Amino acid sequence: MAKQLTSRKDNYSQWYNDLVVKADLAENSAVRGSMVIKPYGYAIWEKMQSVLDSMFKETGHQNAYFPLFIPKSFFSKEASHVAGFAKECAVVTHYRLKTDENGKIVVDEDAKLEEELIVRPTSETIIWDTYRKWIQSYRDLPVLVNQWANVVRWEMRTRLFLRTAEFLWQEGHTAHATKAEAVVEAEKMMGVYAEFAEKFMAMPVLQGIKSPNERFAGAVETYCIEALMQDGKALQAGTSHFLGQNFAKAFDVQYVTKENQKEYVWATSWGVSTRLVGALIMAHSDDNGLVLPPQIAPIQVVIVPIFKGQEQLDIISEKVDEIVTDLKSKGISVKFDNRDTHKPGFKFAEWELKGVPVRLAIGPRDLDNGTVEVARRDTLEKETLQVIGLGDKIENLLVQIQDNIYQKAYSFRDENTFSVDTWEDFCQQIKDGGFVRAHWDGTSETEKAIKDKTKATIRVIPIDEPMEEGSCILTGKPSKQRVVFAKSY
Amino acid sequence: MAKQLTSRKDNYSQWYNDLVVKADLAENSAVRGSMVIKPYGYAIWEKMQSVLDSMFKETGHQNAYFPLFIPKSFFSKEASHVAGFAKECAVVTHYRLKTDENGKIVVDEDAKLEEELIVRPTSETIIWDTYRKWIQSYRDLPVLVNQWANVVRWEMRTRLFLRTAEFLWQEGHTAHATKAEAVVEAEKMMGVYAEFAEKFMAMPVLQGIKSPNERFAGAVETYCIEALMQDGKALQAGTSHFLGQNFAKAFDVQYVTKENQKEYVWATSWGVSTRLVGALIMAHSDDNGLVLPPQIAPIQVVIVPIFKGQEQLDIISEKVDEIVTDLKSKGISVKFDNRDTHKPGFKFAEWELKGVPVRLAIGPRDLDNGTVEVARRDTLEKETLQVIGLGDKIENLLVQIQDNIYQKAYSFRDENTFSVDTWEDFCQQIKDGGFVRAHWDGTSETEKAIKDKTKATIRVIPIDEPMEEGSCILTGKPSKQRVVFAKSY
Repeated sequence: MAKQLTSRKDNYSQWYNDLVVKADLAENSAVRGSMVIKPYGYAIWEKMQSVLDSMFKETGHQNAYFPLFIPKSFFSKEASHVAGFAKECAVVTHYRLKTDENGKIVVDEDAKLEEELIVRPTSETIIWDTYRKWIQSYRDLPVLVNQWANVVRWEMRTRLFLRTAEFLWQEGHTAHATKAEAVVEAEKMMGVYAEFAEKFMAMPVLQGIKSPNERFAGAVETYCIEALMQDGKALQAGTSHFLGQNFAKAFDVQYVTKENQKEYVWATSWGVSTRLVGALIMAHSDDNGLVLPPQIAPIQVVIVPIFKGQEQLDIISEKVDEIVTDLKSKGISVKFDNRDTHKPGFKFAEWELKGVPVRLAIGPRDLDNGTVEVARRDTLEKETLQVIGLGDKIENLLVQIQDNIYQKAYSFRDENTFSVDTWEDFCQQIKDGGFVRAHWDGTSETEKAIKDKTKATIRVIPIDEPMEEGSCILTGKPSKQRVVFAKSY
Repeated sequence: MAKQLTSRKDNYSQWYNDLVVKADLAENSAVRGSMVIKPYGYAIWEKMQSVLDSMFKETGHQNAYFPLFIPKSFFSKEASHVAGFAKECAVVTHYRLKTDENGKIVVDEDAKLEEELIVRPTSETIIWDTYRKWIQSYRDLPVLVNQWANVVRWEMRTRLFLRTAEFLWQEGHTAHATKAEAVVEAEKMMGVYAEFAEKFMAMPVLQGIKSPNERFAGAVETYCIEALMQDGKALQAGTSHFLGQNFAKAFDVQYVTKENQKEYVWATSWGVSTRLVGALIMAHSDDNGLVLPPQIAPIQVVIVPIFKGQEQLDIISEKVDEIVTDLKSKGISVKFDNRDTHKPGFKFAEWELKGVPVRLAIGPRDLDNGTVEVARRDTLEKETLQVIGLGDKIENLLVQIQDNIYQKAYSFRDENTFSVDTWEDFCQQIKDGGFVRAHWDGTSETEKAIKDKTKATIRVIPIDEPMEEGSCILTGKPSKQRVVFAKSY
């Protein structure tokens, strides 16, 4: 192979880093903690954006854009919000550079801002300051707005896609007349994220709520989707918050009801980020490289010609053109890799590394036989098929691959979900990895103690599972429901 | 009308400001110079993005994403670049807030950055620092990358869409093996912008190059498209720069040629921004509100029912559903405004204000007759049409409207383009407005003197016009070509 990866077994973390860089997804930049998303990585993000954006619009949301900078004073208005974000804020203090007496470029101290500006780590405050102007009457509600944007959180330990100082995301911010409607919205968007993760990313997720310790800073309730990575660690893939009236009160957003009463507005916010690209990689990929589900793959089919000399290439290209037309007519994205600078073996390895779901190879003998070699990335199986009727077969194959990748991830999660009832078993299982279903007494103190002892956190309190009486894994106090613990990204 | 605008004649500038706010396009935020782009304004930008993104991809470009922050030292590496942008840079100096002894949120002085970070005003420097890692051999070229992003330029006098401290844009950055190839790329992208402006925005533009005074900071040549607004002022709608080897040398980006020689890489960059929304407004709109070309309108057809009571609305809605299905099958975006909170007259005025190209009104009598009233926004004409075959007629009508809006803007520009040969005529014509074609001696001194005396700048040096001998309008020195002067946004 052209670019060897560390194996997952030898060093999962190194395997991930290798893969991100060697598959041309992203790289570190000269700016601490900020990544460069390379074209192939960005193309995956664009596919995700495109699907999610449609889902948001189908559920009645519109896009808008709010300022990058947030006045410092806005942050102070919602107490738990500022407490949650203060330690990771990039702060703009000046608005001009100048050349000093030595010809060096320096910050112009005369251009100091009266009030410092925070580079948004999330936009609740600037948006709720705006909503005060938009919302007067019940007729103005609901406000269902989403924004695609970059945000900055000054993380100390960063990893490409998973945790970066700057990342790309979408953040929905909605305003409602009633508590019930806002709760429905928050739950609905968790459902949208779950559907996206499962149908498009082929990644099964648990849905539920977060414990108070893991709740978003400023939320009353945080809903989330949680996925299991191949190393047995959990990854929070999306969150949806019911914010109560916290931001409405902090920014004085009231509306006049039909009964002519003034009431504070109810809020939600919800987001997913480029972190999903990291999740996608870790959920499905193998020691040969990326494994992309067809629904999210920028290139679904790659065609590699096997040829000697331009003349053979020309003849093969004619046949390939037919195949390309056939596939494109079915909405399949296809790339013909006709480079004459690299051998077929090199190309096979490269597209395997890049996770293209289906590879077609076609040489002179195939031309004679009217055939093509079809290789699937997920199982690495090959077969020879007739070119006649190929489009339909590839279309079916892509559906099969999508399904197989999902089933594989589902089985993996199933095999790595454990119910334990003793503290010893719990500690051992957390060490071994996986989702660990256990009883908890419902207090933050116990949750914190468990985290201190095992590094495990409550990933999700399931909302669709039957209640079950039991005793807390640590304190033995009564519990009414198992919750899901794991170590996490 | 629900929301009255200042007329263009009375106060063009106020008309623009009124229109942007009252048509729900954008508003000022709490952050100096930063705007909130509201859903309807953002939907226009999304249409523009979608068309441009396709055009970029068809011409071989891929999207990527580079960091928001640029280390200050990077800026200093290209001398004219830093000179051009130093005075409008937002500077990040700290990365943490804290609570002081009085419980106030303050910047944590212990969290001062070793090197200040500039919020990107444009990304040449961070991108060329990255390209050094991407480009080693002629095989790595060309690099054809675009980024959709936000940028910040600390402007002192701001106006919604036209000049804001933060704005959204795309910036293409390409790297080439030869000068000739880079020049072709820069010219090609000017052509893409011109095609977009004319075919989609229905806005005729002049193409050409900028004089040295108006060139991008760091460019060898700046190509541009320039449009004429209804008040006779010019607006630069897009630029494409041939950067020579300036950034390659500043960031040491060399490649090995086929002949095994090391050479510096040749560069271009090109961009358009949310400023285009301002241009769109000022090019076509009237005293009743926005006039949107169908190709860029988020809603192409709005349907307003004329009804009394729910029963009538239900019957009308059935017929409207048929019409909506018919229109959607032709790819026409349509909105059924079935609100029962507002009267038809209010709705008519609102959609007129928002520039929807075609309005259909349908009441009980129309149901009896199988008709619908069709109003076009550009001419304000109305006619009654049969519902049978309506889809085809609307499809044709949208094409006619697009064409009419373009022709009207073209005629306006034609009538407001003047060739003058004396200084007196020049001064008078600049005062009266329009594109003024005049001879110039080719020096920066003269250009600057003309600007000081008249506020006019050289908007464009046309590249496709015949040469013509003449005398400079100010100095009388010989000139080989007329250039286009105007006052500008």
